Amino acid sequence: MSTVTTLNGAQSLIRTLVDSGVDVCFSNPGTSEMHFVAALDSVPEMRGVLALFEGVVTGAADGYARVAGKPAATLLHLGPGLGNGLANLHNARRAHTPVVNVIGDHATYHKQYDAPLESDIDAVAGSLEGWVRRSGHTKDVGADAAAAVAAAQDAPGRVATLILPADASWGEGGETCAPIPPRVPQTVDATTVQKIADVLRSGEPVALLIGGSACREAGLRATSRIVAATGVKAFAETFPARLERGAGLPNIERLGYLAEQAKYQLDGIKHLIVAGTKAPVSFFAYPGMPSELTPEGADVHVLATVGQDIPAALEAVAALVAADTEPVLQGPGRPELPSGPLTVQNWVDVIGALLPENAIIVDEANTSGLMLPAATAGAPRHDVLTLTGGAIGYGMPVAVGAAIAAPKRPVINLESDGSAMYTISALWTQARENLDVTTVVLNNNAYAILRMELQRVGASGDGPRAKDLLDIGRPDLDFVKIAEGMGVPATRATTAEELAEQFRRAVAEPGPHLIDAAVPPLL
Amino acid sequence: MSTVTTLNGAQSLIRTLVDSGVDVCFSNPGTSEMHFVAALDSVPEMRGVLALFEGVVTGAADGYARVAGKPAATLLHLGPGLGNGLANLHNARRAHTPVVNVIGDHATYHKQYDAPLESDIDAVAGSLEGWVRRSGHTKDVGADAAAAVAAAQDAPGRVATLILPADASWGEGGETCAPIPPRVPQTVDATTVQKIADVLRSGEPVALLIGGSACREAGLRATSRIVAATGVKAFAETFPARLERGAGLPNIERLGYLAEQAKYQLDGIKHLIVAGTKAPVSFFAYPGMPSELTPEGADVHVLATVGQDIPAALEAVAALVAADTEPVLQGPGRPELPSGPLTVQNWVDVIGALLPENAIIVDEANTSGLMLPAATAGAPRHDVLTLTGGAIGYGMPVAVGAAIAAPKRPVINLESDGSAMYTISALWTQARENLDVTTVVLNNNAYAILRMELQRVGASGDGPRAKDLLDIGRPDLDFVKIAEGMGVPATRATTAEELAEQFRRAVAEPGPHLIDAAVPPLL
Repeated sequence: MSTVTTLNGAQSLIRTLVDSGVDVCFSNPGTSEMHFVAALDSVPEMRGVLALFEGVVTGAADGYARVAGKPAATLLHLGPGLGNGLANLHNARRAHTPVVNVIGDHATYHKQYDAPLESDIDAVAGSLEGWVRRSGHTKDVGADAAAAVAAAQDAPGRVATLILPADASWGEGGETCAPIPPRVPQTVDATTVQKIADVLRSGEPVALLIGGSACREAGLRATSRIVAATGVKAFAETFPARLERGAGLPNIERLGYLAEQAKYQLDGIKHLIVAGTKAPVSFFAYPGMPSELTPEGADVHVLATVGQDIPAALEAVAALVAADTEPVLQGPGRPELPSGPLTVQNWVDVIGALLPENAIIVDEANTSGLMLPAATAGAPRHDVLTLTGGAIGYGMPVAVGAAIAAPKRPVINLESDGSAMYTISALWTQARENLDVTTVVLNNNAYAILRMELQRVGASGDGPRAKDLLDIGRPDLDFVKIAEGMGVPATRATTAEELAEQFRRAVAEPGPHLIDAAVPPLL
Repeated sequence: MSTVTTLNGAQSLIRTLVDSGVDVCFSNPGTSEMHFVAALDSVPEMRGVLALFEGVVTGAADGYARVAGKPAATLLHLGPGLGNGLANLHNARRAHTPVVNVIGDHATYHKQYDAPLESDIDAVAGSLEGWVRRSGHTKDVGADAAAAVAAAQDAPGRVATLILPADASWGEGGETCAPIPPRVPQTVDATTVQKIADVLRSGEPVALLIGGSACREAGLRATSRIVAATGVKAFAETFPARLERGAGLPNIERLGYLAEQAKYQLDGIKHLIVAGTKAPVSFFAYPGMPSELTPEGADVHVLATVGQDIPAALEAVAALVAADTEPVLQGPGRPELPSGPLTVQNWVDVIGALLPENAIIVDEANTSGLMLPAATAGAPRHDVLTLTGGAIGYGMPVAVGAAIAAPKRPVINLESDGSAMYTISALWTQARENLDVTTVVLNNNAYAILRMELQRVGASGDGPRAKDLLDIGRPDLDFVKIAEGMGVPATRATTAEELAEQFRRAVAEPGPHLIDAAVPPLL
């Protein structure tokens, strides 16, 4: 059907994206993208979602794909648009999220004139270490789009960037392209599986560290069986892209963010088996501290790399070492509703007590959320999306994407005040699209994590001027007003009772809500 | 004094920056920058200014240097921090603004582990086509800092980026470095000056296009003398970094943003003389339209490139062709205060009528500001800073930097609603530093410029879905609430009388204010 009418490049692009299964495009367009925007009316299957800032666009694409299991497209305006979106693309890269960027560029013949918006898009896109192609001719745009979708989804998933010159977009003679099947995850060979089984049965202290797709039900169940049968320790990677949790699933503890925690968790092991992740390293270097967190002298064994079929590999191991063993499943159980002024300890109990069924938690609570996993362990089954790349400002945009991917699931965004301000305009898109997102801002008036880090790095002279630079409470941020200014209803909670009442109401009502929760800093 | 005590790398860096004249550091730090933050207490001459987002940091550095005439430093957190700051660094690059970026990176020995925040900082920094260096050792940090300051200021000015590994920062044995004199602008040779004088006296139609430092008093006066003596046309570049205007200065019209305008302005000329800028090109390409705006067949003559001493070159030409001619100075004159509902036509008259003495206008009014130059031509002398690189979201951060560079001058930020939302948290820094910035948001609920561009690019089928993607009024943005949420007092104006009353009051009171002005879109 689409081949009988004449298409311009933009139309062939959008048609091919839709045919390849990409039917949401998070967008912040400019002049060079106007033909793409115009083409949306000719391919109604494509849903354009507008954001006011490119970091929201790219974060939303990350959140969408983590939940939908397929990529969204982004529409970005030349190099500055990519720059604004780069931090959340970095997080997507670290999450192995498939993303298809479409970046408009000047017309091919216009680039030589070094117009004001000219910049080296290719170099910046290349820094994402994914897939980059520049569409040279209108007739190639469709094929390039199909290739981009496949590249994004080639196991384990990556950021694919298609640079679209304006004349390739507006030119006539666009050709659609049939979907290209992406490369599926490779199966782990039997020798490796056997070798890992041998390590597990060695009698020596072993830890199993899982990541990537192993953090979902099949991988968790296989891991739990292995643990139950062999008595080894098991951990999930510190920042999984998507971790399934809650009653009825195995509860696999995450490796701690702080090197001190992780070293404690891994203390005494002689073998570390990694499946879908790498041997753990410290998030940052600290003077006099080692970068590697695996105990000295312990051997690291790779069961599966992130591009392989990790759950199947774990199941194959379980078949050898735990053939008759059932996984240990977390029973239901919620904290009691606390009372009194909000604290780092009690606000998580409110969430644990009231988390709705089938929720998606987007967790950027940072220091305020240290106690969250324990409080939600026995809550109804839910997904947790985490900050995979350390570039803060991921939470609100990822919540946008998650809510668009799963419109029937409640999205709970637990968000630090400092992190929230990087991409705060995501609230506007939540209002515009009437997304069912409940945001709880943990408002402690500080870059609390940096207060801690200032001590941890052993920086001498943490005097008043240094401390002042980590204080974001001068002036206070009033997230109620900020949210209302962007069309999201909001309330302020200072006690556990208020948070409970407001959270219950926010979750019950459709559409976005924000709760500005006055939780004092950890330090 | 600083050499007798032991310094760590961060201390040697900050001390060297201060010795080199860089004493403001716009900052958004993370863990890898904690030693830099701690070192602020040991070098009290360095003023750390916190922002909640890196686009504010880099835009503020741009605005600061445009007004102060010397660079500020930025403090950014690894690759994602640079990414978030990239759009406003792009604008700074296009403005030839000297900026000294300090980007914290992982410790040298930690990079091999590909920790979550690892990314290719060098590639992204390199895209700015300025100066990039990675400090390898603590003892080199001071010398690298001095080199960065010089590189930033080498005529015509550029973005210099120093990548600072955490261990180079925290290591002991830092050495300060004496300031390195930057490369001054080259003088234009007498032959070129004579040749340009000949063109001016050829009797053929000539236009003179000035840019860069020629947009300040000396260059404007020389240009005006040339115009008065020879009758040629003269224009300032479309987007000057800093244009001096108002009563008592020559009023040199800017070349229009729209290609149609610029072609009209240059119609019929046989010679285009450029001084401190290049022959003009269309901001974007449009189907069937030429990229170059110089009339076909006209010759382009270069009097001075942007790295040369442009005002001196114009004065040398004026000495030949206009020895006895005085410049034509704009007389004082203000519009009458208008009344009635706000329009694109009348809001600029309010500004023109009430602009305070010695103001700095940061202009990101975009389509709403088309009539601004005429309305302010006879206002008291002022500076206008413009969007040099086309990456929107520059205005609010640049206002921060301008206000810190010139604390005794009123800063007036005329800001489009869409553009404001990219870097809205600049308001918080304005409140924190109690900056004398009056922001007028032109709130038309639309990406109005894109509505126009959708027509101009000849995009077929500008249907409802396309139009919806350019509509930012669903929901309305309430900038009063948003500003108040960040600590900036704000009011809403719907009539010219209200705008006048609120603007007068905002300018009279110290500290930041915001006016949410309901100005309907141009189209």
